[in-house]
Amino acid sequence: MKNLNFAAIHHIPHDEYRYTLSTGELSLMLRTEKDNWDKVFVIAYKNYGEEFGDDTNLRLPMEKLASDDMYDYYRVVFTPQDPRLKYLFELDSSSIRLYYTYDGIKTYEELTATSDLPVFLMSYAYPAEAKPEWSRGAIAYQVFPDRFSRVGRLEPDMEKWDSPNIQSDKIFGGNLKGIIARVPYLKRLDVKVLYLTPIFKSDTVHRYNIHDYFKIDPRLGDEKDLKNLAKELHKNDMYLVLDGVFNHCGTEFDPFVDVMAKKEKSLYYDWFFFGAKESPECGYACFASEPYMPKLNLKNEAAAEYFSTVGRYWIEKCGVDGWRLDVSPEVYPDFWRKFRKEIKAANPKAIMIAECWHDARYWCNNGDMFDSTMNYIWSKAVWGLFGSKDLSITECNNQINKNYVRYHMEVNDLQWNMLGSHDTERFLHRAGERLESLEAAAFYQMTSPGTPIIYYGDEIGMSGANDPYCRAPMRWDKTEDSPVLKYYKVLTHLRSKYEALQVGEYKTFCVDEEQGIFAYTRSLHNDTLLCVICAKERGITKATIKIPSFIAKRIYLRDEISGERFNCASATLVLPFKYGRCYCFPVSKTLDLLAKEIQ
Amino acid sequence: MKNLNFAAIHHIPHDEYRYTLSTGELSLMLRTEKDNWDKVFVIAYKNYGEEFGDDTNLRLPMEKLASDDMYDYYRVVFTPQDPRLKYLFELDSSSIRLYYTYDGIKTYEELTATSDLPVFLMSYAYPAEAKPEWSRGAIAYQVFPDRFSRVGRLEPDMEKWDSPNIQSDKIFGGNLKGIIARVPYLKRLDVKVLYLTPIFKSDTVHRYNIHDYFKIDPRLGDEKDLKNLAKELHKNDMYLVLDGVFNHCGTEFDPFVDVMAKKEKSLYYDWFFFGAKESPECGYACFASEPYMPKLNLKNEAAAEYFSTVGRYWIEKCGVDGWRLDVSPEVYPDFWRKFRKEIKAANPKAIMIAECWHDARYWCNNGDMFDSTMNYIWSKAVWGLFGSKDLSITECNNQINKNYVRYHMEVNDLQWNMLGSHDTERFLHRAGERLESLEAAAFYQMTSPGTPIIYYGDEIGMSGANDPYCRAPMRWDKTEDSPVLKYYKVLTHLRSKYEALQVGEYKTFCVDEEQGIFAYTRSLHNDTLLCVICAKERGITKATIKIPSFIAKRIYLRDEISGERFNCASATLVLPFKYGRCYCFPVSKTLDLLAKEIQ
Repeated sequence: MKNLNFAAIHHIPHDEYRYTLSTGELSLMLRTEKDNWDKVFVIAYKNYGEEFGDDTNLRLPMEKLASDDMYDYYRVVFTPQDPRLKYLFELDSSSIRLYYTYDGIKTYEELTATSDLPVFLMSYAYPAEAKPEWSRGAIAYQVFPDRFSRVGRLEPDMEKWDSPNIQSDKIFGGNLKGIIARVPYLKRLDVKVLYLTPIFKSDTVHRYNIHDYFKIDPRLGDEKDLKNLAKELHKNDMYLVLDGVFNHCGTEFDPFVDVMAKKEKSLYYDWFFFGAKESPECGYACFASEPYMPKLNLKNEAAAEYFSTVGRYWIEKCGVDGWRLDVSPEVYPDFWRKFRKEIKAANPKAIMIAECWHDARYWCNNGDMFDSTMNYIWSKAVWGLFGSKDLSITECNNQINKNYVRYHMEVNDLQWNMLGSHDTERFLHRAGERLESLEAAAFYQMTSPGTPIIYYGDEIGMSGANDPYCRAPMRWDKTEDSPVLKYYKVLTHLRSKYEALQVGEYKTFCVDEEQGIFAYTRSLHNDTLLCVICAKERGITKATIKIPSFIAKRIYLRDEISGERFNCASATLVLPFKYGRCYCFPVSKTLDLLAKEIQ
Repeated sequence: MKNLNFAAIHHIPHDEYRYTLSTGELSLMLRTEKDNWDKVFVIAYKNYGEEFGDDTNLRLPMEKLASDDMYDYYRVVFTPQDPRLKYLFELDSSSIRLYYTYDGIKTYEELTATSDLPVFLMSYAYPAEAKPEWSRGAIAYQVFPDRFSRVGRLEPDMEKWDSPNIQSDKIFGGNLKGIIARVPYLKRLDVKVLYLTPIFKSDTVHRYNIHDYFKIDPRLGDEKDLKNLAKELHKNDMYLVLDGVFNHCGTEFDPFVDVMAKKEKSLYYDWFFFGAKESPECGYACFASEPYMPKLNLKNEAAAEYFSTVGRYWIEKCGVDGWRLDVSPEVYPDFWRKFRKEIKAANPKAIMIAECWHDARYWCNNGDMFDSTMNYIWSKAVWGLFGSKDLSITECNNQINKNYVRYHMEVNDLQWNMLGSHDTERFLHRAGERLESLEAAAFYQMTSPGTPIIYYGDEIGMSGANDPYCRAPMRWDKTEDSPVLKYYKVLTHLRSKYEALQVGEYKTFCVDEEQGIFAYTRSLHNDTLLCVICAKERGITKATIKIPSFIAKRIYLRDEISGERFNCASATLVLPFKYGRCYCFPVSKTLDLLAKEIQ
């Protein structure tokens, strides 16, 4: 008999383990120790008028959605017959059948001996609020406005665009008109969401210390320019997301100026944290240890009102489609609930993306704050495998899967998957300038669930260490004949072609350290795509992948990247192996089911 | 080497595993397999400007707060030096020291080999909103208004108070004036919180089908009476909690009448669920399968506005102190957030108690909806041990502990611990009329953390099966010389005497199936009380309990129930054993620490 680990079994009646989708479907997940059980079912029945054991009970097989180093995650998504239901889990191993209940593992005899079954109760399955459909699986693009594109003349205090002097205090004069001019470029890349780092009045190049939240920094343009940008994007079925910096402000922000002048007598005194123990030096709490960024107290109702009005204002005034929210987990949580209501009142399709570098379940999974987050946990796994190369394929796969099962499916569809940002070194720098690594990572990004977000210039092979080097001006001179850009377009067009790549289920297909192969599938309805990455250098020239027999019957598979066909009639796929090379094979829907044959 | 179960280790950076208290302290919990580790520490350090391994790192021992059949729960509560901190867990067994991180178990070598430690991040520890202090650990009392006390004459359609005809359609005419007259009685019982089941206009005796939420049922009295009741209670440092029925209404509720008349054309059409699949028979969703209780749709903004105004109205108008919310987990969650804001605006000390029969973490632990819940999970454990007697002491203790660690400490202090309610059979009936069982259960209730809530009449030994028998008129004739009441007063006065019994930490001291002994401690600051229950009939006349040596030095312990002294000099306490008998010994603070000696 297998050594069954009961203490590893986990389900809670909320969070990622239980939630409704906007369709009204219910998602239930159960975690078990890896490879412990043969089959797992959920048994569900009506809370009113039905009992465990009735013929009408549902007995639904749960699918192994993902695994990591320690656990298997089983999931079922179904439409309950009644929004009020009870459920428990049936676990089958070769030797025994047991039930997982609210009171732990039970035998059938134990269950039927009690009149008060310790079941899980779903009191009422309200459909979740719908997420912004326009962002589901869409390709996004991040712009650092001073450094992206300038229309207009070079002012005396500006650096020339090709100046190597890219320190933080240098102004290059990128502006909104410049961005507007580049919309066709973004469109050709199949970009659908444009994210700008802060654009409001400030005295720095990054503008994360905002002095006036109701004024666009004159260097960047004015409200008309922003409106035009939004209009130009919308015309192209594209969307605009701004950077909301509400954790802290700049020292010239009027309320802060007022407090510094009047101290306790200021009406705004409680908008800040004076005497905070984390910053005894400057007297007030600030972002990190930066006195030029005083931390805001959004527990204060007037401040919360002010900043949620900011959120609403730009949506109503200029047609902005949502916000990426800076340092969001350091902000008072209830402010985000208020902010959400405000911006959703202005535009029900507006989006809220958190900047959580760590676990964001609390912020995203309850539907009351953020739609999703910047997915740095995903980034770190990808960096480890393809960048610094200190993660094995197995380790990367485990981290990706762990992170994937932490969030509601509809949150996952909106996760911002980044290879880099203004806050990190560029991917190419991280990867020791190896283009093959970028190619593999970008392929993984473009075939992963979520919102792949391109940091401006990555797509033409720009490199650079951390700030200021990752914020160099966009090399427009390189866009003409960039082979990297050409490759990126193959990837973005591939993603656009297949809805399964945008919003399909993600599942590990094969992790083969010996051959250096990382393969996974994306599946939606009748479409499945098999993605294969030559992920580690292994000194081999061919890799062999076992293929389920039903696919083998198709005799060959066609790679969407190269256009080449590969014979698979012998239930193996022999692929040329070259580090960084990636394959994407459309296969049929039932691959997942039949994949079990070869496990 | 011990068989260490890594897959059983659990911590999530939210919910019951991590939260702040209203004091600003941070509570961190780690779950491990039972008896796996010798010591567990949390290592915490500042998010900004401090690294793992610095001399300034905190290394805090975690205390084993509770255990159940499978797990140990370790906890530490501390005030962070900076509200922004990182942490991980150190686990020591006799043979090995390991670290539990966001990425699972690591060795010291693995941790120090990486520059990006997979720590847990507390972005910013905002103090939790303070809970209503008046309710912390207070004794509560539940009244079913038609059946509690009448002042005024017997109307022709009323049953006589001592009539045995207690069917649901019989009116006994209990009223608010009657309740006011009994305030001194409640005061003598040390009751601090009075909870009334519904009092608004209705055509049933239970009034859970409300016809007018802004009108007190004329049979019960009027607004003036309610105001007088609140005033009378407040004068005695007592508080009033009403029953809020917002999951459903009665069929004479104006908006429902309007919809039935005008169908889709009614402004209130969307206040209900027409064509709901759970009730095809009557055309609209209703509570359970009761068409006379149409379910309300509180996702509808106008309806949500209406009912949160109800919540606010009675607080402002009559000085009500809060709400127990009927069928609360079947109500749209965001309504409760709105309701909370409304009533807290009217009175920041108002309370919200959920009616969750199952897991209430989602509803209580985030601080955005309920302060706490009716603790039926606790009740079921107590019923199993002392009522139906189908749980062993061990099973009851496990269920109590599991439930205790699920909630924030400050939620636990407000849990409504019931031996029965209008929705259950009375405890005495459940216990086969054995008074010893009631005595043991009531002792356990009055020495447990939370809000012990007495269902009217239980304190004088009233019995009765489920509705209608549990709703019989209060037997005032029995209050004069009731030995049960006398015992209850001993218990309530004991609770009032010791703050540790009200809000102290609860910890299992000893579960001894052989002797039938269940013992636990309640500790606060310098006070610890050792509670001992003769919980199972075992045909013995004495039980022996091991006592830590430092207590033994005191030579004797005095029982607060009987006033008797027991010698404990030999580090054992030999107690007369009689089923149902309970002991409560004040001991010193350090008991918990030294208790380890004997484990």
